[in-house]
Amino acid sequence: MEKALDVTRGLTLVFTGNGKGKTTAALGMALRAWGQGMKVLILQFIKGGWKYGELKAAEKLGPRFVMQQMGEGFIKGSNDEGLELHRTAAQKALKEAQQVILEGAADMVVLDEINYAVHYGLVDKRDVLDIIRSKPPHLHLVLTGRNVSDEVAEMADLVTEMREVKHPFVAGIPAQKGIEF
Amino acid sequence: MEKALDVTRGLTLVFTGNGKGKTTAALGMALRAWGQGMKVLILQFIKGGWKYGELKAAEKLGPRFVMQQMGEGFIKGSNDEGLELHRTAAQKALKEAQQVILEGAADMVVLDEINYAVHYGLVDKRDVLDIIRSKPPHLHLVLTGRNVSDEVAEMADLVTEMREVKHPFVAGIPAQKGIEF
Repeated sequence: MEKALDVTRGLTLVFTGNGKGKTTAALGMALRAWGQGMKVLILQFIKGGWKYGELKAAEKLGPRFVMQQMGEGFIKGSNDEGLELHRTAAQKALKEAQQVILEGAADMVVLDEINYAVHYGLVDKRDVLDIIRSKPPHLHLVLTGRNVSDEVAEMADLVTEMREVKHPFVAGIPAQKGIEF
Repeated sequence: MEKALDVTRGLTLVFTGNGKGKTTAALGMALRAWGQGMKVLILQFIKGGWKYGELKAAEKLGPRFVMQQMGEGFIKGSNDEGLELHRTAAQKALKEAQQVILEGAADMVVLDEINYAVHYGLVDKRDVLDIIRSKPPHLHLVLTGRNVSDEVAEMADLVTEMREVKHPFVAGIPAQKGIEF
């Protein structure tokens, strides 16, 4: 195992599927990288608008763990009236991501819910493919969100599908502090 | 959403499957809970023996984020010569978990790789079911590891299967700092 430490190759990881754990897996990756002294940037493409435990955690973790909420909240479907607002927010997140990645200002960049943003046409798939293709070799890139496109999955080094087997909301349990937010 | 904040009900979550992201999803959950001011304990039932980014992160997060490696490293199969050593370590982790849970000394307890430990007979499935059944109502319990037993899945509130779609090791890429460790 130790020898591998010398080989630095930034990976592109995808967490997709309809199950829970995509964003949390990305957060765990970010925490692990942060623990290794890396600089982490997490950009949210969809969620936003209320206080998450992770936002409070990010504050406490300090300047090497930056989390930016760019999204305008949940999309209600492709007929969502606020779709244009979502698009503006997602485009802003994309620009931020492109800039940080280009500058090499982070060791790991998490594009949270970007797959979902592509799926809804808020972000052009070609822009995402460009980011993967042109990222600095050392950079770890983590893309989350359901409905990852085939081309993005094809370019990624690792793809995990989170499959929902059982969900508490189905059983009528409300969102819980420390779990859902 | 806000109303749900008043209802505190500890959930039992399972991350299973052969894909990456089970432990990292649990770590992300733990980070989120920690950010909410909760006290988190993470017990590793299998992995151990070398430095993880998450161990370094845990040190920095302080006394509300405790991570204990109890396992004796990877199991090579049911004929592994060190199986007895693994069993001793897993039993020690189990005892620790039972005690912390009984005392109500944590708001979230992650039993990392416990499903795997049960699968290999290092831990008795009935002990795990007992923990789920007798945990304090407010406690969030997270169980990770492939091959979750049907009975544990049945008792859990949420089960996500991490399905491996694509893995970098298949493509001959060595373990990367900040990703694998």
